[in-house]
Formats: sequence, C-alpha cells, structure tokens
Amino acid sequence: MKTTKISEAVVRRLPIYLRYLTHLHHMNVKTVSSQKLGDILDINPAQIRKDLAHFGEFGRKGIGYEVDYLIEKIKQILKLDQEIHVALIGVGHLGHAILNYNAYLKENMKIVAAFDVDPQKTGEVVAGTTVYHLDQLGDIIEEKAIRMAIITVPAEAAQEVADRLMQTRIKAILNFAPVNIKARDDVRVHHTDVTTELQSLSYYL
Amino acid sequence: MKTTKISEAVVRRLPIYLRYLTHLHHMNVKTVSSQKLGDILDINPAQIRKDLAHFGEFGRKGIGYEVDYLIEKIKQILKLDQEIHVALIGVGHLGHAILNYNAYLKENMKIVAAFDVDPQKTGEVVAGTTVYHLDQLGDIIEEKAIRMAIITVPAEAAQEVADRLMQTRIKAILNFAPVNIKARDDVRVHHTDVTTELQSLSYYL
Repeated sequence: MKTTKISEAVVRRLPIYLRYLTHLHHMNVKTVSSQKLGDILDINPAQIRKDLAHFGEFGRKGIGYEVDYLIEKIKQILKLDQEIHVALIGVGHLGHAILNYNAYLKENMKIVAAFDVDPQKTGEVVAGTTVYHLDQLGDIIEEKAIRMAIITVPAEAAQEVADRLMQTRIKAILNFAPVNIKARDDVRVHHTDVTTELQSLSYYL
Repeated sequence: MKTTKISEAVVRRLPIYLRYLTHLHHMNVKTVSSQKLGDILDINPAQIRKDLAHFGEFGRKGIGYEVDYLIEKIKQILKLDQEIHVALIGVGHLGHAILNYNAYLKENMKIVAAFDVDPQKTGEVVAGTTVYHLDQLGDIIEEKAIRMAIITVPAEAAQEVADRLMQTRIKAILNFAPVNIKARDDVRVHHTDVTTELQSLSYYL
C-alpha cells in the first residue's frame, strides 16, 4: 500500500477527505461523488479524483465512491488502522489547550504522556494525561510505545527538545514553536504556528 | 505589486522566509544565498528562487539576496507593511493560549478584541485583550477596524460564527475548529487543526 513520492499537499488533503467521509458515514450516506465532495470541501473534483487515484481505483463511474470503503482505505493509507501513541512536550497554555483537545482526537490517535522541564508540573494530570519531567522522556516513550510527538515549548527550547526526541524511537514531530526545527532525514517534522498562518492569510486581504 | 494566481503553497512559504530573514537581520547578516536559505529551511533552493521570482527580481548572481531589502519586499507582498487588527472568537482553552501568544505576533499584526457567547466572560481581560459578548461582534469589528478573525469555538458553533463574521467587513478567517467552513468567494478561510495535522504526519510513520 505504501506509495512513495506522494506530495505533501496530497497527504494533507487525505485527513480532510476522511473527516467529511466520516461525517457522511454518521449521516448514513452510502456513496458520494467527487463533485459533491469538491463542493463541500472547496476542492476541485478533478483534484480529488487525482489524489485518490494515487492509491488505487476507489471510485466507480456513475456511482462515485463508497463511503465506508473509502474511509477504510484512507485510514490504511494514513496508517490510522493502528493505534498511535503521541507525546506532548511543553505544558504551557498551548500544551494545556491541546491536552484538553485530546478527547477529540480520533482514529486510534491518543496523547498518552506529557512532559515539562518544570518540576512543579511533574505528576500533574491534565485532562487525563500525566505530566512527566523532561528527563524521563526516553524511558516513558519506550515504556508507552510512543511514536509521534507534539512540541509546544517556547521557541528557544524547541530545537533542544527535538534533538532529545531524535535520540528516541520518535519518527514524526508536530512543532508548534515559532522556529524551524532541523531534523535527520528519517524524522518527519511538520511546523504549524499561528503567526505564519496569519501572515499567509494576510496576503489575501 | 499584487500578482494573481500565486499558489497557496507559495504564499505559505513566504512567512517562513520572512521569519528566517528577520533572524538574519538581527544577526546583522547583510546578504544570503538561496542555497543557504534552502539548507536552513529544508526547501529546495531552486524552489525558493522560483517562489521569489513571482514577485520580482530580488536576487543577484554571485551575491544572493540582500536581507533587509528582501524583508521589506516580502512584507509588502504579504501586506504586513500595514497594521492589521485581528479578532478572536471563542475564549476557551485554545483561545486563551492564542491570546497569550498575542505578544509574539509580529509585523503589525495584533489581536485587538476577543469574543465569547458566555456572558460570564464578558469584560474579562485575557493577556491584555478584552473579551466582548458575541452579540457585539459587528460593532466592535467596525469600531476597531478589524480585518481578520481567528475562530476557536467548538466545531458545532464554527459555521454560525463564520456566518456572523461574513456579515461584517472581515475578509480573512483562520479556523481552528475541526470542521470545514463554507464561505463566500470573497472571504478567504484557512483551516488549521491538530487532528488533521497529526493524521497527515502519521502517513510518514
């Protein structure tokens, strides 16, 4: 199933498709056309067909996509058919917000441990997740079979945290700190930050 | 200066360039090559040259880009040479986190008002920003000349908030609620949410 050279743009659209397909599933809708998907998601239907065609022949002429089947396939492509344990590092305001959001994470994805350098926060439980001291990072990641990490520390600490994570089994990092993180080729880092989001939106004003 | 048909991918990279160029400026670096930029930002140097060439001839062979000049140009392109007032709607955990982050917003961008439906929150001041009742949305947006909005309400309220925003002068919305918002063609909506970010990262595991 693993197909190489799929662009990041395609990979970023798959969860969007999955979210709406899951909504359709809950509405008991059985099939959907790329036209309808495109209308709702504001994406060109030809783009949707092309995106999905990278992974196989999922649609049928005149019928469209079978909702449940496509959900299952996208989950497989995104490896969401496995349970994925996530760590969060940095229990400040944003860290708190994301931990509170944990209940909404779906598709077998769960934040199972949080970390902070502040010893006062160690042992705290935020929205069901225990906060450990950063020094326990390696041990807990091993113990809880954690595969992904979310960085919500201040900018000046982000690279050091990333370096520590790269000494563990972690292969995917979502960085909220407003700084570019350098990582080895075998570790995938996505950056997300409010400032750059707002700045790119500003272009359209 | 406004060039049409620039892809969203290009527009999303400009703030990344700007952030690093600003860092170089603070380090008193005068010129930088696309090679060096590419190394640091993990972007193909040819891509960087192509991105910037959309807007003019900013680089010089053998010298590269003049840092201060390029900063000024990117700010112009992103309209960050003007002051941009932002509203935030939904003062829950995430809203709090972003309001606390407000101090870090740069380049003339500032959250100048927050809104919530909870009357208990009305009048509260979070990290220097006053919380107004959602019913005051139109008046305050007019009064404070607000041009962009950040939505941090729960998923089920997001479309209604967006509909209310579209009755105002707002033309750009950054939506953190985990739901796709439908908007008129003249209103630009960017979506950002932790679940879809984690799901697309999962692909690379």
